[in-house]
Amino acid sequence: MKVIILGIDGYIGWALALRLLREGHEVVGVDSLYTRRRVEEVGSGSVTPIPEINRRISEASKFYGSNITFYHGDVNDPDFVYNFMEKEVSDAIVHLAEQRSAPYSMIGLRQARETLIQNMGGTINLVYAMKDIAPKAHLLKLGTMGEYGTPNIDIPEGFFEIEYHGRRDTLPFPKFAGSWYHWSKVHDTNNLMFANRVWGLRITDVMQGVVYGTRTREINETGFYTRFDIDEVWGTAMNRFCVQAVLGIPITAYGKGDQRRGFLSLEDSISCLMLGLEKPAGEGEYRVYNQFDEHYSINEIAQFVKDAGESILGRSIEISHVENPRVEKDQHYYNPEHRKLRELGYHPSRSLKEDVHEIISDIQKFRDTAEKYRSSVAPKTYWKESSGLRNQH
Amino acid sequence: MKVIILGIDGYIGWALALRLLREGHEVVGVDSLYTRRRVEEVGSGSVTPIPEINRRISEASKFYGSNITFYHGDVNDPDFVYNFMEKEVSDAIVHLAEQRSAPYSMIGLRQARETLIQNMGGTINLVYAMKDIAPKAHLLKLGTMGEYGTPNIDIPEGFFEIEYHGRRDTLPFPKFAGSWYHWSKVHDTNNLMFANRVWGLRITDVMQGVVYGTRTREINETGFYTRFDIDEVWGTAMNRFCVQAVLGIPITAYGKGDQRRGFLSLEDSISCLMLGLEKPAGEGEYRVYNQFDEHYSINEIAQFVKDAGESILGRSIEISHVENPRVEKDQHYYNPEHRKLRELGYHPSRSLKEDVHEIISDIQKFRDTAEKYRSSVAPKTYWKESSGLRNQH
Repeated sequence: MKVIILGIDGYIGWALALRLLREGHEVVGVDSLYTRRRVEEVGSGSVTPIPEINRRISEASKFYGSNITFYHGDVNDPDFVYNFMEKEVSDAIVHLAEQRSAPYSMIGLRQARETLIQNMGGTINLVYAMKDIAPKAHLLKLGTMGEYGTPNIDIPEGFFEIEYHGRRDTLPFPKFAGSWYHWSKVHDTNNLMFANRVWGLRITDVMQGVVYGTRTREINETGFYTRFDIDEVWGTAMNRFCVQAVLGIPITAYGKGDQRRGFLSLEDSISCLMLGLEKPAGEGEYRVYNQFDEHYSINEIAQFVKDAGESILGRSIEISHVENPRVEKDQHYYNPEHRKLRELGYHPSRSLKEDVHEIISDIQKFRDTAEKYRSSVAPKTYWKESSGLRNQH
Repeated sequence: MKVIILGIDGYIGWALALRLLREGHEVVGVDSLYTRRRVEEVGSGSVTPIPEINRRISEASKFYGSNITFYHGDVNDPDFVYNFMEKEVSDAIVHLAEQRSAPYSMIGLRQARETLIQNMGGTINLVYAMKDIAPKAHLLKLGTMGEYGTPNIDIPEGFFEIEYHGRRDTLPFPKFAGSWYHWSKVHDTNNLMFANRVWGLRITDVMQGVVYGTRTREINETGFYTRFDIDEVWGTAMNRFCVQAVLGIPITAYGKGDQRRGFLSLEDSISCLMLGLEKPAGEGEYRVYNQFDEHYSINEIAQFVKDAGESILGRSIEISHVENPRVEKDQHYYNPEHRKLRELGYHPSRSLKEDVHEIISDIQKFRDTAEKYRSSVAPKTYWKESSGLRNQH
């Protein structure tokens, strides 16, 4: 199979490229190196070592004996998208090339506009290019479990049958996201449903939980790390907690810490994406997966990190509850369904509680790098302070 | 009260400005004259005579003895929005400054991007400027009944209480729009809900039906017409049917003609918007109205126009069913609620069946202009043909 990965230089994109190569598929990579630049801007960088893009691409190509073709450019530029789509006839396109940070989108008006316009613009270019050039190709697009928010009812996988005033219909589940970033993914989902309705494009829209981990089979095998961010803008809570444990900073759990989210290991995320590619949406089908394994509260995550950290590092680790910079419910019902991927054959292979050890050990290995970015870990981006008049940072 | 109207040069904006002036309010107008330019591009123009903007503003100011301050610029430019928001401390902002044509958004990728980015960008600038400069002002924003699509259940006003797997919650009603334009309004609605949630902005989001008519009390009193579009891109079905009747072209009902939509007269639309301004959303409130009076099928509208036209013009008028250029359900359930405005005190004063006579008479008065734009009335924009490689027109 020939797969175009938009966002090949990113956390998921790189790990997916290695898996595809290992399994003998042809990979085309597209990236604007946006995340590298934006992470640098907040005074941080990947804790794991990642070489510059051309070296990275050629090393992986060499290791697996298959050439990755790489296109450097911005998917929000229609000409750029039409150009690589015309040159590379592919079976599938995996779209990971979006601004992916909730805090970044909440820094101020400039970042809000950038997130909303950049993410929507890329997806629109892509569905038009598919419609014009590759109407039978399969689009695997990364959304987020955060699109659903935290309703007081079960969360289905995309659609649900409801009764209202005595009549029934199957409708998209109402979304309520918690940042401009998360809303940009809701807007994408809506635009993709419409592209499917009008032009019959084959689309898998993946509502993915928070992904954790530094390793996959291929990363173990090659030593070609994927990026790992630990600052307050680009790093997840899990990543920040682990780096705080290593650096001897108290773990900063936001608010009461009872917020629950779905989680998934990097290894299992890649397996799920592979399943989505190997068993694609049918002709004219738009399908939605909820892609996560377990859900945990922030307090539970903090406790796992504390326990693992104390056992590895041999010293006590403090958990400190700081003012929640986000606007989100502290306590809420949370019961999202996630059956479809298991029905396709997915079996989870990792658990968060165990993987925490591996993550902490990897950060220890690159402790000097983590130390360098120490000041970027504490919260600085407050939802209520987002403004067009002054930058929060 | 002091009101800023974004889109004062448009169909609704102009009629609302006259009403506000007549009732002694202070009006600030903002417009980029976008609609004038875009209508010219498709070889058409307003059938009713509308003078250039400065004359129009000064004539209305003189008639009602109150100066309209006018800002010429693009609401998708953050600096422009912050500039007028800082200069004009107002009680309310009415946001009508969006690309408002479904067919325009479906011409091709350029127009799709323009619609999605322009509409979203303006609304985002506005909520940030309100948050930073006028956090207590009331935003009255025009959405569309088209956001809901045509589900097989009743359509509530914005939110509904549902039971799912034995639990209950009140959630936003799931949207399913029928063009990039309609989706841009859904995206706005989502972004507005979030701006309200995070910053407590006071917002009324109006899901308006199709507005018909050439007249309001103030237009009758002043002779200052609002624009009236009749081409396939910028004119509604009702407008096109009336001009076809006058020009002796068969009425082009799209598809089977059983599609149903909600309708409202221009006079009553303005009364509803005035009610929304006089009884604003409370502090921290986000509320949604369904603003329409009656719903009709395309066939019913065509028949009203045929009957009125034959009686006024004294000759027979043909209804012709042409291939539907849109992708939409032909036959569907349609029962949207619309109680809230009536509870606020709204009483409809006009009916579509009667107003058709007035519209046809007005078009007859400007028949030479209508004749000039004759070739722009027939459908040319096909949803399935929208492309990034070639322009449909």
